[in-house]
Amino acid sequence: MNNFPDLIVKNIGLLATPEGKCAKKGKEQGKIKLIEDAFIAVQGDTITGVGTEEQLKALEKQRNFCYKTQIVDAGGSLVTPGLVDPHTHLIFSGWRQKELSLKLKGMSYLEILKMGGGILNTVKNTRRASLEDLIQNGRTALDRMMTHGTTTCEVKSGYGLNVEDEIKSLEAIRELNKIHPMELVPTFLGAHAVPEEYKGKTGEYVELINKQMIPRVAGEHLAEFCDVFCEQGVFSVDESRKILECGKNHGLIPKVHADEMTSLGGANLAAEVGAISADHLIHAGDEGLCAMAEKSVVAVLLPGTSLFLNESFARARTMIEMGIPVALATDFNPGSCPTESLQLVMNLACMKYRMIPEEVLTAVTLNAASAINMASTIGSIEPGKQADIVIWNAPDLDFIIYHFGVNLVKTVIKKGKFTVNDGQVI
Amino acid sequence: MNNFPDLIVKNIGLLATPEGKCAKKGKEQGKIKLIEDAFIAVQGDTITGVGTEEQLKALEKQRNFCYKTQIVDAGGSLVTPGLVDPHTHLIFSGWRQKELSLKLKGMSYLEILKMGGGILNTVKNTRRASLEDLIQNGRTALDRMMTHGTTTCEVKSGYGLNVEDEIKSLEAIRELNKIHPMELVPTFLGAHAVPEEYKGKTGEYVELINKQMIPRVAGEHLAEFCDVFCEQGVFSVDESRKILECGKNHGLIPKVHADEMTSLGGANLAAEVGAISADHLIHAGDEGLCAMAEKSVVAVLLPGTSLFLNESFARARTMIEMGIPVALATDFNPGSCPTESLQLVMNLACMKYRMIPEEVLTAVTLNAASAINMASTIGSIEPGKQADIVIWNAPDLDFIIYHFGVNLVKTVIKKGKFTVNDGQVI
Ligand SMILES: [Zn+2]
Ligand SMILES: [Zn+2]
Repeated sequence: MNNFPDLIVKNIGLLATPEGKCAKKGKEQGKIKLIEDAFIAVQGDTITGVGTEEQLKALEKQRNFCYKTQIVDAGGSLVTPGLVDPHTHLIFSGWRQKELSLKLKGMSYLEILKMGGGILNTVKNTRRASLEDLIQNGRTALDRMMTHGTTTCEVKSGYGLNVEDEIKSLEAIRELNKIHPMELVPTFLGAHAVPEEYKGKTGEYVELINKQMIPRVAGEHLAEFCDVFCEQGVFSVDESRKILECGKNHGLIPKVHADEMTSLGGANLAAEVGAISADHLIHAGDEGLCAMAEKSVVAVLLPGTSLFLNESFARARTMIEMGIPVALATDFNPGSCPTESLQLVMNLACMKYRMIPEEVLTAVTLNAASAINMASTIGSIEPGKQADIVIWNAPDLDFIIYHFGVNLVKTVIKKGKFTVNDGQVI
Repeated sequence: MNNFPDLIVKNIGLLATPEGKCAKKGKEQGKIKLIEDAFIAVQGDTITGVGTEEQLKALEKQRNFCYKTQIVDAGGSLVTPGLVDPHTHLIFSGWRQKELSLKLKGMSYLEILKMGGGILNTVKNTRRASLEDLIQNGRTALDRMMTHGTTTCEVKSGYGLNVEDEIKSLEAIRELNKIHPMELVPTFLGAHAVPEEYKGKTGEYVELINKQMIPRVAGEHLAEFCDVFCEQGVFSVDESRKILECGKNHGLIPKVHADEMTSLGGANLAAEVGAISADHLIHAGDEGLCAMAEKSVVAVLLPGTSLFLNESFARARTMIEMGIPVALATDFNPGSCPTESLQLVMNLACMKYRMIPEEVLTAVTLNAASAINMASTIGSIEPGKQADIVIWNAPDLDFIIYHFGVNLVKTVIKKGKFTVNDGQVI
């Protein structure tokens, strides 16, 4: 601490954080730093000091803090880094609650599609929506995410599926990043589905993506990542490879929706093209996982989707044992996972993946940051990192994993500024 | 509406409620009343009128409402009856978050017990706690339940396990019922476990329950129901029968923790003794369920517990098809289900039990009320019923089932009075 801090969080009962600037794998994923009776000093948007209350007292004796220093009393509670959600489909128009009910009443997905339901329904509504509509919808969801502890999220396009509406979606992300305290990282997902007008002509749609969308997206710096829904009946491994390689040539880092419903080879492809993450992975085979481990591709797991769709759960323990860094995300979207809460995802990761609380914390902070190429600036509470901090209504890490179904976030600090207090965005 | 209403809730986009004064079974469970553009009139703590906005306008023309009538604009949202949680263990001291972590790290339940964990740990802490401590803990949990839409809950004793501390627990419930807007219905569960000092002497503990606890509980009117944890290694069917029959002789209505971990015969016993509900039922066989159907015993299902313990899920669809009225509850307790949220339970009932949204609504309102003998006064929005009302941040019933992991309650009205606004207890 060379300068007077602007903000000191003190009376932290337990500070829990992973450490470092890259993803943790294997046994390292479960090792976190714990400091009892801790403090955090912040200057501007950056953490400048972390230590024990005793160390703070010693510092206070050495010199008085500036009268401008704001003191926050954490009330003896748990403090963690701000949560990072590395996989969301936040930009859409129109919820699809009717489909759950229809499915439960016995209608097949095909029948629902015939009735105009499914993803193409969201595409229709998103195309019709104005930029302002998308921003307004996004803002409401970001508020909910932030009250549940998320301070940074990845957001994908993918409900436009034509040049104009994919650009509109990415512009909405850019605008939200300016006006909302949440930090948004944009991913181009033109290859989310084949739009109706290209039905049976997937090759032509891939051409459209590669010749028109990617150059424009990259040219206007609208995305950092390029993602593909690599799945039977959607984009094959070959088509996915073409898109991801084209993205790479334009400076977009690859991500893959891999092996969610079938074992198509998405995990292998992710390793092959040097993707930063492969996501879902419910049906990824050992070979694909081995390839991911070798290339340190982050596995982004989405247990909320497994719960909502009554799917099986990805083999998280196997992945951790194989040395793959595991991150967790909501997959927030109107079709397969309508939840903004990373907290519930953390609970599910313990209950269904059998991850231990320490692994889960790393998965929603440092490893999630790694999955979106931000581990050097966020994902842990250490001097030099951005001051993204959550104060919990909980005494320890075990408690927030265990006490489920309710929001335990008390206060959220983003880039050194208060954004949530007593459950409300301020 | 004979008199001027004290309160009118208007601009209700959709009012959804079951109807009647007794539990709904079979196909009836999925039939609810829907009124678009509705209003509700309330006088004192009672609903005096329900209808469409058009009917309201006609009434307004006939005569002016009293100037004291408070008008609440529901903003076009969904309105349902207040939720009823018919199975909670709210009165305890000491959370047990460490055990989840130990289990995940590979420790067996036996080893955890040896370390002083498990239910007897909660008993130790609850015995040590003062009445005031128990009231304070209970109040915090009740606030959380109410912000998630619950307006009435059943609460069991069962962490005292001696005369003095069972009475203290039931007194805490009585006190909370006076000081908190939540309506609490007390159940005596001295037979929750065999306390350490009676280890190997279950028969003697049953004697203590029957000779000392039940007469005193009934004499002081501290409980309405008598419940037993009928489970292998806890209380046998014979022991459970003795306790429930003794309770009946003292005017306590039987309830049974039945067939949760093994198929011991709890469902049969519930039917045999005329229990008002049998709860858990994960391993209940067809014969037991048949007996329950015949006697219209309400099945209180607890999907949160199945999720938290990684148990299988009860056969809710079979029960509904067999004509058993199904209710849902949180099972809120520090060991096997640390959640206060009936909303998450509703989500799980769809995802894991495959209940349709209409069946779920009946299960957490009218059928839950039936499980605690209150269906004549609560559980539906109809003239004459108590004014327990939830206004949701949602357009329709499907939405609250679908959009999971976040709290969608906007406003809670209990006995005609506002108790929750914008997510905060007032
Ligand atoms: Zn996705
Ligand atoms: Zn219970």
